[in-house]
Amino acid sequence: MSHATLRIDGDRLWARLEALGEVGAVHGAAGERGCARLALTDADREGRDLVLSWMHDLGLSVVVDAVGNVVGTRAGTNPQAAAVMVGSHIDTVRTGGRFDGNLGVLGGLEVIETLEQHGVATVHPISVAYFTNEEGARFQPDMLGSLVYVGGMAVEAALDVRAADDGARLGDELARIGYAGPTPCPTATAPHAYFELHIEQGPVLEDQGFTIGAVTGVQGISWTEVTVTGQSAHAGTTPMRLRHDPGFVAAAITTGVRAIATAMAGTQVATVGRCEFHPNLVNVVPATVTLTVDLRNTDEGLLQQAEEVFAALCEQLAGEEGVTIARRTLARFQPVEFDESMIGLVESTARALGHTTMRMPSGAGHDAQMLARVCPTGMIFVPSVDGLSHNIAEYTTPADVVAGADVLLQVVLAAAGAHSAAVH
Amino acid sequence: MSHATLRIDGDRLWARLEALGEVGAVHGAAGERGCARLALTDADREGRDLVLSWMHDLGLSVVVDAVGNVVGTRAGTNPQAAAVMVGSHIDTVRTGGRFDGNLGVLGGLEVIETLEQHGVATVHPISVAYFTNEEGARFQPDMLGSLVYVGGMAVEAALDVRAADDGARLGDELARIGYAGPTPCPTATAPHAYFELHIEQGPVLEDQGFTIGAVTGVQGISWTEVTVTGQSAHAGTTPMRLRHDPGFVAAAITTGVRAIATAMAGTQVATVGRCEFHPNLVNVVPATVTLTVDLRNTDEGLLQQAEEVFAALCEQLAGEEGVTIARRTLARFQPVEFDESMIGLVESTARALGHTTMRMPSGAGHDAQMLARVCPTGMIFVPSVDGLSHNIAEYTTPADVVAGADVLLQVVLAAAGAHSAAVH
Repeated sequence: MSHATLRIDGDRLWARLEALGEVGAVHGAAGERGCARLALTDADREGRDLVLSWMHDLGLSVVVDAVGNVVGTRAGTNPQAAAVMVGSHIDTVRTGGRFDGNLGVLGGLEVIETLEQHGVATVHPISVAYFTNEEGARFQPDMLGSLVYVGGMAVEAALDVRAADDGARLGDELARIGYAGPTPCPTATAPHAYFELHIEQGPVLEDQGFTIGAVTGVQGISWTEVTVTGQSAHAGTTPMRLRHDPGFVAAAITTGVRAIATAMAGTQVATVGRCEFHPNLVNVVPATVTLTVDLRNTDEGLLQQAEEVFAALCEQLAGEEGVTIARRTLARFQPVEFDESMIGLVESTARALGHTTMRMPSGAGHDAQMLARVCPTGMIFVPSVDGLSHNIAEYTTPADVVAGADVLLQVVLAAAGAHSAAVH
Repeated sequence: MSHATLRIDGDRLWARLEALGEVGAVHGAAGERGCARLALTDADREGRDLVLSWMHDLGLSVVVDAVGNVVGTRAGTNPQAAAVMVGSHIDTVRTGGRFDGNLGVLGGLEVIETLEQHGVATVHPISVAYFTNEEGARFQPDMLGSLVYVGGMAVEAALDVRAADDGARLGDELARIGYAGPTPCPTATAPHAYFELHIEQGPVLEDQGFTIGAVTGVQGISWTEVTVTGQSAHAGTTPMRLRHDPGFVAAAITTGVRAIATAMAGTQVATVGRCEFHPNLVNVVPATVTLTVDLRNTDEGLLQQAEEVFAALCEQLAGEEGVTIARRTLARFQPVEFDESMIGLVESTARALGHTTMRMPSGAGHDAQMLARVCPTGMIFVPSVDGLSHNIAEYTTPADVVAGADVLLQVVLAAAGAHSAAVH
């Protein structure tokens, strides 16, 4: 028989989201219910322990690897087949939400529990993973666990990473919370496929009125820190024509990168999120201004083009105003494109389930972009109310959570090869 | 005989500048020699005591008033005549120079010592004043002492002012350093005239190649704090068209006020000196940006015009970007115009002494603008090297110091009515 009518249990999934959300809970003044589970803190351990207990409850065979990635696996009928993996993360930013990451992990458990409940076997094993330090809020780089998992970073280097705030060593913190596991990393066997259900963390699905995003890939990222050095001067006594004002130049860069993104259109975005004036006094033309420019595009060539126009703008402004501009790359990642068959699978599955769906790139980074290096990878987005994420007001409606998890269930079944349902 | 050939003693004046500069001295890594004598601190007391001792050495009759203004007077030949006052301040900003304020006070002492040395009597008394808390670096408002001196602020209100940093009460600090004087304030008798020799604190004289600035008045000042509130959002996941970005709006205001000043030309200046992003993260569209706009013009009507264009710009940007903009006035002073006869006297005196001279407004506030409320007032500017002030690298050459003090001597003589030189 077909398993196309199989559905997850929304109440059960929601209850797990609520329970995990209580670990490191942060309550806002307006009733917001967020989470603070920075990677490898006591709160993270508590969250890990809770999810691990659910894995054990489901009878999964669990391995913890050398950087603390946890993978619980339900066997398939073919002992030689690689697992279809469902994964994400359960660490959060300092004032994070209850859905970011959690939904992908608990959605995976819900898929397995649904199969268990209905006695559905699969050819390929199905595994559920939570990867260490996805957020990068405590340790850099972000997506560290999945990066190491696919062999993009050596275990030793990862263990030696120090926390940005307190300088704690990642390896020591792993051991402290009991998640320095025995399984070697990177993984010896690549998954057969990887799926990640995630909240969009942006406003596009809501704005356009779609329920399911079939994620086409992850935008390339270019982060630059710009330091503009001019001539500090008295705001009253210095005529405009004699100024070398780094604040004006920083402002012209800020409006300039907006213009670059608007002119390029497509997926190009440009953001000045950080800006600091020195000495930052009302009546003093600043001596120095430091700002950051975040450029993203799904197309590497277009991203390079944006970088070039931005660099030329800096050169032009430096010359016109008589200031010096130093640029320093803080991060640079090429765009990731997911396998077309996986995008199509998510899209067609969503449609078959009666959901509106659109293809869209991810503007944020995800573990899926690391897994895409080693296996066909698909991502399912569900709407974020008001586009909010990394915010204790982050929210996705129960209906959208259920819609996303049902799509996850069906794509996993399609990839893992379901057998006939067992007799009830 | 004429006293037109009388000259001050440059070495003596320079030596006093050096000696006072050693009190609260700040030494820079590149050999800069600055000063930190915040108002009513121990360093300020030490500076006050030193200048007071010089007043006593010169036989001046000294009064200290209720807000700590110190006035030393050399008698004139007409007991009924009001004094010609020479004044400025000796408090400094936290990383200030050795010339700002000091030059006006010590220039006044040098004028008196020159008259003493040459036995020149004057019809009007000549007094030298240093006013309390001109800088406003520790207590607000700035120019507090001279403001109270001319009746623009009640003594009680001034004494109750609290320090911005440690909350100390001005009256308590005055008493602590021994400068809570017995003389009532405001002054019962307005000076006959007031002169202030001061460094320009800007680059204009140096840039234009003039030695003496005949100050026409003080620019009107309009300080506004602008708080732009938008929608914090993920830099990767939020399309440009869905953004409500206060950082972009702050930048557009910054380039906009530059455009306003450039278009208005004349004496109009516009500065964004302070700007703060929240939460100030590379990958987050800020939620809130606070910036300050400093507008100045010598003409009240034009200053109001600049304020109106600026306000309209804010309204326009708020509507276009979908953000809210709150504006709060931090300070607002109308322009001050000095008496034409005093401007002309400074100008003609400088020419007669062979110095190049130009008329110019002051972009900075000075005690002279307060004294201008009660008596004819003139200011003499001398060049600041590189336009620097409120900076430990502040410097004026000995030649320019001497030129300014000689002009001061002659304008004081002109206003005070010199008698024949005594027989030597």
